[in-house]
Amino acid sequence: MIYLTRRERFSSAHRMFRPGLSDEENMRIYGKCSNPLWHGHNYVLKVTVRGEPDTETGFFMNATRLKEIMTVKVVAKLDHKNMNLETDFMAGKVATTENLAMAIWNELAAPLTEEGATLHCVRVEETENNYVEYYG
Amino acid sequence: MIYLTRRERFSSAHRMFRPGLSDEENMRIYGKCSNPLWHGHNYVLKVTVRGEPDTETGFFMNATRLKEIMTVKVVAKLDHKNMNLETDFMAGKVATTENLAMAIWNELAAPLTEEGATLHCVRVEETENNYVEYYG
Amino acid sequence: MIYLTRRERFSSAHRMFRPGLSDEENMRIYGKCSNPLWHGHNYVLKVTVRGEPDTETGFFMNATRLKEIMTVKVVAKLDHKNMNLETDFMAGKVATTENLAMAIWNELAAPLTEEGATLHCVRVEETENNYVEYYG
Amino acid sequence: MIYLTRRERFSSAHRMFRPGLSDEENMRIYGKCSNPLWHGHNYVLKVTVRGEPDTETGFFMNATRLKEIMTVKVVAKLDHKNMNLETDFMAGKVATTENLAMAIWNELAAPLTEEGATLHCVRVEETENNYVEYYG
Amino acid sequence: MIYLTRRERFSSAHRMFRPGLSDEENMRIYGKCSNPLWHGHNYVLKVTVRGEPDTETGFFMNATRLKEIMTVKVVAKLDHKNMNLETDFMAGKVATTENLAMAIWNELAAPLTEEGATLHCVRVEETENNYVEYYG
Amino acid sequence: MIYLTRRERFSSAHRMFRPGLSDEENMRIYGKCSNPLWHGHNYVLKVTVRGEPDTETGFFMNATRLKEIMTVKVVAKLDHKNMNLETDFMAGKVATTENLAMAIWNELAAPLTEEGATLHCVRVEETENNYVEYYG
Repeated sequence: MIYLTRRERFSSAHRMFRPGLSDEENMRIYGKCSNPLWHGHNYVLKVTVRGEPDTETGFFMNATRLKEIMTVKVVAKLDHKNMNLETDFMAGKVATTENLAMAIWNELAAPLTEEGATLHCVRVEETENNYVEYYG
Repeated sequence: MIYLTRRERFSSAHRMFRPGLSDEENMRIYGKCSNPLWHGHNYVLKVTVRGEPDTETGFFMNATRLKEIMTVKVVAKLDHKNMNLETDFMAGKVATTENLAMAIWNELAAPLTEEGATLHCVRVEETENNYVEYYG
Repeated sequence: MIYLTRRERFSSAHRMFRPGLSDEENMRIYGKCSNPLWHGHNYVLKVTVRGEPDTETGFFMNATRLKEIMTVKVVAKLDHKNMNLETDFMAGKVATTENLAMAIWNELAAPLTEEGATLHCVRVEETENNYVEYYG
Repeated sequence: MIYLTRRERFSSAHRMFRPGLSDEENMRIYGKCSNPLWHGHNYVLKVTVRGEPDTETGFFMNATRLKEIMTVKVVAKLDHKNMNLETDFMAGKVATTENLAMAIWNELAAPLTEEGATLHCVRVEETENNYVEYYG
Repeated sequence: MIYLTRRERFSSAHRMFRPGLSDEENMRIYGKCSNPLWHGHNYVLKVTVRGEPDTETGFFMNATRLKEIMTVKVVAKLDHKNMNLETDFMAGKVATTENLAMAIWNELAAPLTEEGATLHCVRVEETENNYVEYYG
Repeated sequence: MIYLTRRERFSSAHRMFRPGLSDEENMRIYGKCSNPLWHGHNYVLKVTVRGEPDTETGFFMNATRLKEIMTVKVVAKLDHKNMNLETDFMAGKVATTENLAMAIWNELAAPLTEEGATLHCVRVEETENNYVEYYG
């Protein structure tokens, strides 16, 4: 079993808040991350898939194909977007890095299975000091 | 003459657009960076000052003091903010990295002179692939 | 289950040596790292906690709270200190990165449990080429 | 149990191709990575070993010894070489990162056992955007 | 005057050698970099242009346009290529980083002038420890 | 004219203080950096030399030779040392990064001239957030 990881990046605006709460209550829970006028990040996305390398080709999934799936299913829906307002798979969710990682997992698991690979980990890095990992 | 550089970071939302133009015209000039619903970045700010080290203390400006001035005058006004709507020194300006670097220069030059240092360069990195430098 | 990691940094002096041995014997075991007049590093500390995100808030532990606990319990006792002489939780231990990682685990496990999180991994990077991980 | 990781680097030329296939067929499978006149990378190699730290020395394997083994068994055979034509342990294999990671595992597992350490992971990073991990 | 820098990357094979000399003489001058069977690197290219920002648009050259010119004129001719054998602007030159930086300058200066920008610096990083800068 | 830069690293203990002052006075000037029991850093040293590339060899100074001079003249005297107590060229100087950069310049200028290169810049990075440059 081999693990292959591909890194992609996207720049998004977001805000952490719960619709039913006041700005003050959201500020208490999420701090400056709940700023009503948005802020944003250069997110780093690392997707790890696993599989048995084919003995003839020497791999189980081409990294270029992994990049394509990540781009179409995830990055194109987040890059230079407002993830709260424009990203379909984040609709109705609090835009925490945790929820983002789980939502990205749901977008990628099936398409990767169709390629003969198994999704192993979705890692989302929000800043150089914070990141989240989800293993399904 | 010695050059001292301090790195700070801030995460902001922004949009590049000219108020008098339509969304289509702004999209033609600025591309996806003009998305009306905002996007954002983890900006890296590097400020370089120069001076003659004092022969007794061995420096001309404490890096901690440089950090304080950068934080109060610049970072606190940009971090977890929408720079188009909330940052006083960006009011009425197109939020390009170029304009941002020049505006930061204007905020820092005088306070640094008061400390006995000379502002040499403001560098703003928008992503790992793009940055701007301004020398006054 | 989600894994959240926070990165912090500290700059410390240290020396690897066993008190009962001569400088020559320590040099044979630890090499230049046993220099009697100390040396130091910019250590990078990555602490990973795991938990079930709350369905309402979208996280199980605020990264800011994780940062506070790491700062109070660990970083403040190591940063700009001599870890052999000044860090209480390293007293009587050889100052290897391995012992440091295990000692940091012991400082953090209980306070993190009180926050409803489970400590998963302590990673200490001594240089860009060497790091140690401890999973309890 | 503690995990110790050492990073080393090597710069190699390679080409991905299967000898029995035409250049066109190889191009279809491997893309530009099958260029017949070679290309190359700055590879990053991270080797993780695990063990129980000795209570007296505070470690189970000196990082300097790990570096020596990595250098002699792996890096010296790849650095500034053509891995398809000059690296004995890659002979007859398609030069994918996956095959490279597995071949490096085979070179390191026994020598590390002799040192009292257990090989845990071989990670090979081909670019800043792609890497492979093998756990045996 | 503002300075704008764009980073691009390419992976190439190369060899440093002078055609009239024996392999032994080349090895004496260039060391392992003259290996006759090639080696390679992940090169990082940073191109800096300067200009006066337009007061209406807030920039003097779109970073996306800079990327396009770098890609067409330089990166496409080097990436996944053998720069000694396949890159037209390196033909007949010793493939040192110094010569590469000067050759890239020659490819970029005129097209950038046509865009209203002035080429300021070409920086080529061969490894994380070595880079070359050329200012014309 | 071409500029060649080589990066090296060293890990040292140090303390910023002036011998004639009390610990309290030093603390007021240098803050936590004056801790009497030392602290330390992973310093990054970048040395830039300039010259005219030889038209036959394609360079003016081999990067390997630059590395050797940096190692013998500077790095070997600082790495895994206490720079206040053990580094001859820092004797009698306050161990600021500014003084360190100027002292390194003095060690390197003459040996580099003998190699036919001109020392252009000494850059010393103390942490990822602070660095100093000296141009003579």
